[in-house]
Amino acid sequence: MRVYNFSAGPSTLPEEVLKEAQRDLLDFAGTGMSITEISHRNKAFEAVVNEASSLLRELMGIPEDYAVIFVQGGASQQFAAVPLNLMHTGTADYMVTGNFAKKAWQEGKIYGNAVKVADSSDRTYTYIPDVDAVPFSENADYVHITSNNTIFGTRFVKFPQVKAPLVADMSSDILSREIDVSKFGVIYAGAQKNIAPAGVTIVIAKRSLIQSPLPVCPTMLQWKVQDENNSLYNTPPCFPIYIALLVLRRLKALGGIKAINEINEYKAGLLYAFIDGSSFYRNGVVKECRSIMNVPFVTPSKELDEAFVKEAAGAGLVSLKGHRLVGGMRASIYNAMPVEGVKALIEFMKQFELAHK
Amino acid sequence: MRVYNFSAGPSTLPEEVLKEAQRDLLDFAGTGMSITEISHRNKAFEAVVNEASSLLRELMGIPEDYAVIFVQGGASQQFAAVPLNLMHTGTADYMVTGNFAKKAWQEGKIYGNAVKVADSSDRTYTYIPDVDAVPFSENADYVHITSNNTIFGTRFVKFPQVKAPLVADMSSDILSREIDVSKFGVIYAGAQKNIAPAGVTIVIAKRSLIQSPLPVCPTMLQWKVQDENNSLYNTPPCFPIYIALLVLRRLKALGGIKAINEINEYKAGLLYAFIDGSSFYRNGVVKECRSIMNVPFVTPSKELDEAFVKEAAGAGLVSLKGHRLVGGMRASIYNAMPVEGVKALIEFMKQFELAHK
Repeated sequence: MRVYNFSAGPSTLPEEVLKEAQRDLLDFAGTGMSITEISHRNKAFEAVVNEASSLLRELMGIPEDYAVIFVQGGASQQFAAVPLNLMHTGTADYMVTGNFAKKAWQEGKIYGNAVKVADSSDRTYTYIPDVDAVPFSENADYVHITSNNTIFGTRFVKFPQVKAPLVADMSSDILSREIDVSKFGVIYAGAQKNIAPAGVTIVIAKRSLIQSPLPVCPTMLQWKVQDENNSLYNTPPCFPIYIALLVLRRLKALGGIKAINEINEYKAGLLYAFIDGSSFYRNGVVKECRSIMNVPFVTPSKELDEAFVKEAAGAGLVSLKGHRLVGGMRASIYNAMPVEGVKALIEFMKQFELAHK
Repeated sequence: MRVYNFSAGPSTLPEEVLKEAQRDLLDFAGTGMSITEISHRNKAFEAVVNEASSLLRELMGIPEDYAVIFVQGGASQQFAAVPLNLMHTGTADYMVTGNFAKKAWQEGKIYGNAVKVADSSDRTYTYIPDVDAVPFSENADYVHITSNNTIFGTRFVKFPQVKAPLVADMSSDILSREIDVSKFGVIYAGAQKNIAPAGVTIVIAKRSLIQSPLPVCPTMLQWKVQDENNSLYNTPPCFPIYIALLVLRRLKALGGIKAINEINEYKAGLLYAFIDGSSFYRNGVVKECRSIMNVPFVTPSKELDEAFVKEAAGAGLVSLKGHRLVGGMRASIYNAMPVEGVKALIEFMKQFELAHK
């Protein structure tokens, strides 16, 4: 029996996508081969890459002068790729709004003067600093932000307006809301939340910015090389790219990002409204900074939190344990989480409160 | 209908493995989640990583003081990781026996004095230079070889005996023949030939060698970090690791590497014997250097080569086109290629010769 999977990533995928992948697993596009077996030089696979990148361009409104590439290593590898491709003068600004934002900043320090221009650790990353009050550096090569903080359940609602190219790790909210790509220099995202199984990372980068990687940049981390080779410089992660294509097709059929954003706002709205109306559950994030993808919450005690996670799993609502840095619970309600999953969670929360209050 | 897929990589997987993956695609290990959806922090997934690495240790006889890690980016990314983890004095030796060996050497040059100590390009890489006659450097940090050259169809039968740690890219022959791991400092392999779908790369490294990566080494490329985190430093490529586990289980059940090596020798023996006995087909590789994984061959003309590839595909024998650097045909007959596939190829070759001679 399928459960409702609230994992922060890897995370739930649309059931119809999985069923299509299952049906075709031994014979992809009539080739007599599995998508896991076909050569990446086969035209049938090249068509997968091309359609996936075209759909991504269409859905996100990516300008023509931006590269769209599929790479490996997750966002964590991009924490190095960002300075290795962009840090020319040796200074870059980082807004440290969570654990991964901090890791990105620390990786940046390997390659130059990575300046922590904002830091919300003083209140356990429960808010996003006012972007208009941040003392950005005069000559930074880029400004790095994490658009949605998976662990802490915050997101940027307003993005900084800066002279330097804005670089965003959008791993946990890409494709969940409309953004103006042209306002960004680089957007990157591990796919295992809103797009595909783990193993593929998407990079969207303004081509004019990525022409001179640092001399120590490994060839495989050079965005320019990946762009010039249509993500086929070496063997790509074929299966996750294929699933990404199925997910993107489905997203288009649903009405695109505008439509899914409405559903996401609705799902998150239901859950936050229930939490806010309860005296038993609490979400500690500053309201205007709340993520619509990751909703952390607690009960009145650690013991009850533990019981909640356990009993919820018994009821088919799994992976609700919060990150160890935060504790409590976290419901990740990405694009593929059905409204019914959120409703089932709220129903369970009601029952749990009645039983344990 | 399933075809016989002779692709050099990604390449054919055991049909029973694909069927198992298909059956369980929506519900992995009774979790109610797909292996593509389950958190990498879930114990059921950790068990996958642990069993896969244990099985690899057992099958290859990997000593306890070696790390076994699953990473991303393919062998091409390891071309950078090798110097970034090992190039301490700044000199390393490379035996350039093919296209990927050359790429590894070129990448090494980014980080130090990568010395080309041997080069078989004078005869289009159709042989492996005598390892006892190579002028290895006195103080190299390591000696890099490519154990099997996928494009050119050669392999090292005898490995160099060197003072410096021997580093081998075994992408296209790992698990195909018995080797003494203790004679190597590092072995790495993209999985998409003998192990799994594209997207996971295996690194086997003597721990004492990998404790001091270069300062510019990205965290994600530090083997030490991956080892200390049991390949779970960040989200790993879960699906390819899972398929690797199924392939390794099957290999063990078949009798391990000794058993598959006998089958591989038998398959390659059939094909080479047929080619050598023919006046129509030709394999240009020096006999004692012939690969048992990749068998390039030509007909008397380019036109016939083209016709061969096309007609073979029509007969359900696909991906036989040789690499553009070599032309002609190439039959990649990895562990998962059944004996029947090789026999069907030989039968087709006979018919084609009769029809076109």
